[in-house]
Amino acid sequence: MTQLVECVPNFSEGRRPEVLEKIASAIRAVPGVKLLDMEYDRDHNRSVFTFVGEPAAVKHAALDAAGVAVGLIDMERHRGEHPRLGALDVLPFVPILGITMAETVELARQAGRELWERLRVPVYFYEEAALSPARRSLPDVRRGEYEGRKLNISEPAWRPDVGEPRMHPTAGATIVGARPPLIAYNVDLETDRLDVAKAIARKVREKDGGLPAVRALGLELSGKGMVQVSMNLVDFRRTGIAAAFEAVRAEAGRAGVRVHRSEVVGLVPLEALVDCAAHYLSLQGFTTDQVLEARLGG
Amino acid sequence: MTQLVECVPNFSEGRRPEVLEKIASAIRAVPGVKLLDMEYDRDHNRSVFTFVGEPAAVKHAALDAAGVAVGLIDMERHRGEHPRLGALDVLPFVPILGITMAETVELARQAGRELWERLRVPVYFYEEAALSPARRSLPDVRRGEYEGRKLNISEPAWRPDVGEPRMHPTAGATIVGARPPLIAYNVDLETDRLDVAKAIARKVREKDGGLPAVRALGLELSGKGMVQVSMNLVDFRRTGIAAAFEAVRAEAGRAGVRVHRSEVVGLVPLEALVDCAAHYLSLQGFTTDQVLEARLGG
Repeated sequence: MTQLVECVPNFSEGRRPEVLEKIASAIRAVPGVKLLDMEYDRDHNRSVFTFVGEPAAVKHAALDAAGVAVGLIDMERHRGEHPRLGALDVLPFVPILGITMAETVELARQAGRELWERLRVPVYFYEEAALSPARRSLPDVRRGEYEGRKLNISEPAWRPDVGEPRMHPTAGATIVGARPPLIAYNVDLETDRLDVAKAIARKVREKDGGLPAVRALGLELSGKGMVQVSMNLVDFRRTGIAAAFEAVRAEAGRAGVRVHRSEVVGLVPLEALVDCAAHYLSLQGFTTDQVLEARLGG
Repeated sequence: MTQLVECVPNFSEGRRPEVLEKIASAIRAVPGVKLLDMEYDRDHNRSVFTFVGEPAAVKHAALDAAGVAVGLIDMERHRGEHPRLGALDVLPFVPILGITMAETVELARQAGRELWERLRVPVYFYEEAALSPARRSLPDVRRGEYEGRKLNISEPAWRPDVGEPRMHPTAGATIVGARPPLIAYNVDLETDRLDVAKAIARKVREKDGGLPAVRALGLELSGKGMVQVSMNLVDFRRTGIAAAFEAVRAEAGRAGVRVHRSEVVGLVPLEALVDCAAHYLSLQGFTTDQVLEARLGG
């Protein structure tokens, strides 16, 4: 059985296409790794790459890409709106197929150790790979950013998890972790009342006592006369697409509003679709292995 | 974009494992072709192979497998319960990903021409590849079987579509075609009344005025105290899994019976799952390309 891992590194470079192309080339050069997506933002001066493959190949590609970034990005000169700690700022690994979260955490930890050994970049572990609860949340680990961490990295609270307590002179530090796949899922409502969308978002999101592993916002769809409940399902095994949809539909129904449509933005793991079919069809014993296209990679 | 075609050849051999292994080896030997399944039945003296890949590779594998079968299967000595016309009896091609039915028909026609050119086996085209309405249905084309066709192949009604009007002396003739993927889908009912399952099957199946492209039977699930509506969805783009499930559930509801669970037997194309999600979630603009695992083959 093939094991598939996704890797979504965030680099502190969003303005020099030639640097982004070199990072992309390093990823593409590793056999068995497929670069699925690359996005960058000039204002944030930041880029996000998405690639997948077998665990060893994905780690290999991540380290090669890190090598390019460490060589070409100088945090001493980096300016951008988005918070950041290093040239390779965040390195999350995501289990996709045939691999457990525990195995993905081990992969992330190994990648962190090699980052230090090969490139002398100190590493923090976050989310599922965190070594302490205080370091689970990415914003917490990144507090103070590159400039602040240079001053406090030797303090006990800010010592890196791997490597010596000093920032790489140009590449800073890297935050490495493991997390479930994230699904960006929106439900449009047949009303122009933003207060309804905001109230539903509050009802369904985890932080206000709603569904586990759901983040949600109410947004206006300008020009369409409609509003949207825009969600991130950060762990679809806890709350899947079907459960999120039904919760929004039920809340909308209580407000006398109908659902217009829903949309998935970007990629979803096959398992999320299988779960959706299982939910609505009382489908039993069905696995991703029964999907023809999934069998092709096996 | 990758094009994927499935091929499901039926051979008149179900008793000699060494012959089946040689057919399997011929298929596996073609780069880019993946053999997904092989089933055989001693009583039918028949075997069914399932493999997938890009169109040219799949055609290549089908012809190589046909060559093995023509060399090793002698229809003069073949006995078995299942109707058959030749050593390679039926050769259906199924569009899976990135390929139209029209392109699949062209592939089937080309394969049929090469079967004659390489092996001197006359060919009939059926289903979507049929050249006349009288030859769409497989049982119609196979009427009289190997023994009968030897006698009437030169009559206008039975002349092959490709090749000269005489049977191959040991391999007979082959029926080549293109058809949509078939989904085997069952819904179990919380009742032991077989008459209810049979009545629902009649309501939902096409031949009695029910849903298009649906075949259905009512069956007893022995030992479970339940009955089952067992369906073949022969074109899920006309009636998909969700529509079939909802029709059975509605009919069961009218009979005061509840659905226990449903199951998919064997493989389904990813598109059928995407359609199911789209049905229940009012999901718009979503395509199989957004499924991570599907992107890996692209």
